[in-house]
Amino acid sequence: MSKVLVFGHQNPDTDAITSAISFAYLQTKLGVEAEAVALGEVSEETAYALNQFNTPAPRVIENAGSETKQVMLVDHNEAQQSVSDIKDLEVLAVVDHHRIANFETANPLFYRAEPVGCTNTIILKMYKEKNIEIPQNIAGLMLSAIISDSLLFKSPTCTDEDVAAAKELAEIAQVDLETYGLEMLKAGTNLSDKSANDLLTMDAKSFPMGTKNVRIGQVNTVDVAEVLGRQTELETAMTAVNASEGFDLFVLVITDILESNSAILVVGDDKSPVEKAFNVSLVNNTAELAGVVSRKKQVVPQLTEAFK
Amino acid sequence: MSKVLVFGHQNPDTDAITSAISFAYLQTKLGVEAEAVALGEVSEETAYALNQFNTPAPRVIENAGSETKQVMLVDHNEAQQSVSDIKDLEVLAVVDHHRIANFETANPLFYRAEPVGCTNTIILKMYKEKNIEIPQNIAGLMLSAIISDSLLFKSPTCTDEDVAAAKELAEIAQVDLETYGLEMLKAGTNLSDKSANDLLTMDAKSFPMGTKNVRIGQVNTVDVAEVLGRQTELETAMTAVNASEGFDLFVLVITDILESNSAILVVGDDKSPVEKAFNVSLVNNTAELAGVVSRKKQVVPQLTEAFK
Repeated sequence: MSKVLVFGHQNPDTDAITSAISFAYLQTKLGVEAEAVALGEVSEETAYALNQFNTPAPRVIENAGSETKQVMLVDHNEAQQSVSDIKDLEVLAVVDHHRIANFETANPLFYRAEPVGCTNTIILKMYKEKNIEIPQNIAGLMLSAIISDSLLFKSPTCTDEDVAAAKELAEIAQVDLETYGLEMLKAGTNLSDKSANDLLTMDAKSFPMGTKNVRIGQVNTVDVAEVLGRQTELETAMTAVNASEGFDLFVLVITDILESNSAILVVGDDKSPVEKAFNVSLVNNTAELAGVVSRKKQVVPQLTEAFK
Repeated sequence: MSKVLVFGHQNPDTDAITSAISFAYLQTKLGVEAEAVALGEVSEETAYALNQFNTPAPRVIENAGSETKQVMLVDHNEAQQSVSDIKDLEVLAVVDHHRIANFETANPLFYRAEPVGCTNTIILKMYKEKNIEIPQNIAGLMLSAIISDSLLFKSPTCTDEDVAAAKELAEIAQVDLETYGLEMLKAGTNLSDKSANDLLTMDAKSFPMGTKNVRIGQVNTVDVAEVLGRQTELETAMTAVNASEGFDLFVLVITDILESNSAILVVGDDKSPVEKAFNVSLVNNTAELAGVVSRKKQVVPQLTEAFK
């Protein structure tokens, strides 16, 4: 077996980056020549975590086929969220916690998905099943992913298993979970020096829904009003992205990580499925979604249903 | 959560039936109200195993939606191999050892696939991870599935994990592995009282390949010549099935379980992809495939590639 590349989704968040690192390390210990890479630059939140635990960011690749034919996917499975040449590659393994769609293989493979809040919660289980010790820095990165995906356990995607895994990893990483967690989340909310396009791409994914192509971005903040203060600039950028990338609808979810609420900003020709999905009326293209913090659990399924 | 139905693929083989039984039992022990059902009558081989281990055959269902909205799939994932109303159901879990294709969910789920020879090898692992004891009869059924899928360890799909699992299960089931295994396999090769249609449907699956719809049936025997002696009758039935079910190609794989070879019988408008896939020339619609015993590993990938 030649070198195997391990990577998370495009527009990588902390789980996408760190689960590639933790899973590649596990594979290496199992005798596979595996390298963690990334499908985009790391966010400020992820950079904070990598810096805290003295780990370099994985190098960014444009395609995988020029280096290898065999890959392992973490934190995603859908082709449109993966590397550009995914159709030409053999997927040996997937570890994920999302729905399964637009994913197809010619051969049997290793696939491990569980409906938990974070890919690294599943990877921790696999380390234990294989009896492999987790280095301190990797434990810290895995912990960072659980904090990030669960918004410090406030997201409805967070399960008891995620909380237990985070506590266990905090012990190995030797950090105070709450203190470190809040610092890391805040590091990711410094949006003032970001362009509108930065905000749209920092955590955005595409989803085919019915016959439409929907883009859903998410921004974490401690000041929703500050982000909405840039509405005109954001809408111009969203309209341009829809036109250039062929999206029918762009939904930007602006999440208050302290209050656990979100506002949405919507741009597209037909916004009625959004109003139907969340039972709201858009005013000036925006609406408040009380208690919504999880794209995966509180946005994607509702929108998917509305587009049926 | 209401009752959850657990089932394997259509035209169930021994693994499809027994993995539904073993996984439903595991789920019950984990607090889920789960019932094993089947998408077709059991084969003679499976009936032999069920009888040996004093377990009734699961009841056969035509659809699941009239009873429940939530299901768990074992030994398959592709929609066209599953229950007729699969698109209307929520799949909570999958345990499988096949490629992934034509499978899509709206929500995150539990998915466990490994490239091993038998679904029950994975399920044994899950019993151990959850620390749940396997009753003697269920161990016997799980063992039967490994023997069936691996043709007593002769199939190239068989891994070291399957062999180790079978030995462990034979201990719990209190049977001599080799003696029981050969008896069970032979019980499944009594084809003399079977109609041509019986032979075509006893273990047949559909695969979309390129733009074509391909049906691949498999029959295990200790006398290939006896089966090919019924070629005219079989071809008439295959032609009729292609017409009524919309298959472009029907490949019947007749496998000698003692010699570990197969003959194929092919009916369809364009048989050239078959010749290309196996590098053979069909003579009178048949060819010998030396060393071929596994549809999954030695037939489906090769044909899929040839149809590209």
